[in-house]
Amino acid sequence: MSFYQPNETHDPNLKSWLESANDPNTDFPLQNLPVCKFIHQGNTKIGIAIGDFVLDFEPYYNMFVAERFEEKSLALAASHKVRKKLIEDFSINASSSLKNLISEHLLIPMNSCRFVLPFEIGDYTDFYCSIFHATNVGMMLRPENPLFPNYKWLPVGYHGRASSVVISGTKIKRPKGQRRIENGNIPVFEPCKNLDYEVEVGFFISKGNELGKPVSIQEAEDYIFGLCLVNDWSARDIQAWEYQPLGPFLAKSFATSISPFIVTMEALAPFRVPAFERPEGDPKPLEYLYDETNQKYGGIDLNLEVYIQTQKMREEGFEPYLLSRSNMKDLYWTIGQMVAHHTSNGCNLRVGDLIATGTVSGRNKNERGCLLELTWRGSEPIELPTGEIRRFLEDGDEIIMKGYCEREGFRRIGFGECRGLILPADQFN
Amino acid sequence: MSFYQPNETHDPNLKSWLESANDPNTDFPLQNLPVCKFIHQGNTKIGIAIGDFVLDFEPYYNMFVAERFEEKSLALAASHKVRKKLIEDFSINASSSLKNLISEHLLIPMNSCRFVLPFEIGDYTDFYCSIFHATNVGMMLRPENPLFPNYKWLPVGYHGRASSVVISGTKIKRPKGQRRIENGNIPVFEPCKNLDYEVEVGFFISKGNELGKPVSIQEAEDYIFGLCLVNDWSARDIQAWEYQPLGPFLAKSFATSISPFIVTMEALAPFRVPAFERPEGDPKPLEYLYDETNQKYGGIDLNLEVYIQTQKMREEGFEPYLLSRSNMKDLYWTIGQMVAHHTSNGCNLRVGDLIATGTVSGRNKNERGCLLELTWRGSEPIELPTGEIRRFLEDGDEIIMKGYCEREGFRRIGFGECRGLILPADQFN
Repeated sequence: MSFYQPNETHDPNLKSWLESANDPNTDFPLQNLPVCKFIHQGNTKIGIAIGDFVLDFEPYYNMFVAERFEEKSLALAASHKVRKKLIEDFSINASSSLKNLISEHLLIPMNSCRFVLPFEIGDYTDFYCSIFHATNVGMMLRPENPLFPNYKWLPVGYHGRASSVVISGTKIKRPKGQRRIENGNIPVFEPCKNLDYEVEVGFFISKGNELGKPVSIQEAEDYIFGLCLVNDWSARDIQAWEYQPLGPFLAKSFATSISPFIVTMEALAPFRVPAFERPEGDPKPLEYLYDETNQKYGGIDLNLEVYIQTQKMREEGFEPYLLSRSNMKDLYWTIGQMVAHHTSNGCNLRVGDLIATGTVSGRNKNERGCLLELTWRGSEPIELPTGEIRRFLEDGDEIIMKGYCEREGFRRIGFGECRGLILPADQFN
Repeated sequence: MSFYQPNETHDPNLKSWLESANDPNTDFPLQNLPVCKFIHQGNTKIGIAIGDFVLDFEPYYNMFVAERFEEKSLALAASHKVRKKLIEDFSINASSSLKNLISEHLLIPMNSCRFVLPFEIGDYTDFYCSIFHATNVGMMLRPENPLFPNYKWLPVGYHGRASSVVISGTKIKRPKGQRRIENGNIPVFEPCKNLDYEVEVGFFISKGNELGKPVSIQEAEDYIFGLCLVNDWSARDIQAWEYQPLGPFLAKSFATSISPFIVTMEALAPFRVPAFERPEGDPKPLEYLYDETNQKYGGIDLNLEVYIQTQKMREEGFEPYLLSRSNMKDLYWTIGQMVAHHTSNGCNLRVGDLIATGTVSGRNKNERGCLLELTWRGSEPIELPTGEIRRFLEDGDEIIMKGYCEREGFRRIGFGECRGLILPADQFN
């Protein structure tokens, strides 16, 4: 079941008795209802974010929805049935007894929750779907020929490391690794010097396919649970030395951060847009990657923002500084195409697999989704409000990613934050 | 606890009341005792291979070893304590009542077991540790400069796909994928034409390290459970088109086969040899990859054989045909160095992670561990006993890998087989 058209649950006039859900600045109005996992008083729980609170899903479901025994899963929490019921029960028109019961027993202040990974991630795949990012990076390495000939024919991707995917807020220890000494072919093993972030969008797989049975582009979105923010931390100097011929390895596997909330495909329905408009002369996708509906609705109008806050900024009371704003709709490939391509060889996806888009960059300079691009490999440093200079990340820097969708006539929905603060290489987190 | 020296459990004169364990040709004498998981009468069980049988470990342990409640894990089945007790209980000197009890209730004929993956594999990493393989492949692509400058400084590796690791015997469906049309930059999506195998050795991780805490070269082997055979199936034409700039993806993720038995580090003690002797002029490994003990005992003298049996060979009664013989001791990097490097950036390994060595090739032509090398990219086809010609794998071909260790004064131990038969692209297995 694909959600390309808004339904009654997207009505912008829905109002809740829970005041914080009505705040025009909240990421989590009634129209959003993203799911998460969190630990509260020692128990791991499934939650749904509403305003400044997280609803304790299992007891809510047992009290108000359950008709029979059902496994209380994230999928159930994200279902259309639960979404409708929540909107009813949180409506300003709900009875005051219901309202009291829920607010006294089932709502936990978000700031007292410790969020954890929503799924045990079987495999993590990272794509490279922004043609602007790929072109920028390619230009630094091969100015005459920045894109490889395969780029417009298939979504380039690689296997990432699942074990080191961590939840937002986890501190990130600067990795050590081998790095080439200036222009030489002799390396040293030292703390990474060119530590970077990459702003990406991730999506979780909601059902598996059998090994040997590809998922068609037409059914691809039925396998997608919802979206989150991803920071694909990257050690550029380690990567430059290690990556040939088999791709990035230790330059990425020290940590990947994700935001705690999965924004469901249904919540995203009002923000679906056509797939990226390919410039004249670009090839039409091959048949297994082409579908009319995907062309029409495959894109997602999701704004992404990246902020930095250095130790000095925190000490001197500066707010986080905006580094870039980009948008997922500028990706050359859609999430449906990523799933169809990933499984086209028969590879099996499993529930909870995480797939990320690759760095989301746009056409303009202020839409570049990593420092490598923003500072053009360090050659154009950024000046921060404190007067500090950044080419790459320093110890004590915190990167904060935000995401939100907005459209005239609809409520803005947000993704929360994906945060990570850099610790020195020798400090244990 | 590292096992570099043979102990009393490696005594070549041990004899068992179980006749098949004494057979000089068995892979599974008393000195071996590899562990596995299998399904028997609907139950998943931990097993230990002895002669032509698999011992049902849990009831054995409960009856003969347990002193207190312990989780019956693969690790326990592979422990020194259990190994010693097994050798005692299976000794020719065991009482006839014990022998009857075990043989009547706890031994299952190996050919009636359905083996399954020994662990739920969290992450699968594939290295590229044979300098002979890397040089051969490099020569085909960059004859003037086959090895990248990083090769002798670090074990090159990449993240593989964990979901599609399958047990020996699983049929392998020929993948479809994008492949470049002759010399052009326009692809077609079709069944892979250049399907290949790669003979590798895999090892399982026995304990995890915390994210941010590297494992030193000195302690690396304490994290290794034992070894198995790996067939890293590869679609060469898909790989050639897709792999730049992020490495192999769909060319590998359709399937990776492993043999069912994990041969423990203790069983391998008599077969430890010095690390690969680096030619004059090659760099000494950096400090985090260098250890005297590892230099002295880090290698493993494990013979690997690859056989092919085509459909026609089966029909006409031909035995499988030997394609290559290579040896793990020829790898440029040791398993300890792989673990130390993998975690040097703080990357966390988890129990059950699978790490593979990459194709094991040797100096000589008959030691090349894949068809790409053996037929030099198809330019030197192989003639089989039926008169058939092979450049790459055809539908109906079965690849059979075997591994064994032998040394004067010790019992030969074997790894069993890793098998896979190629199905046509459109046939569902």
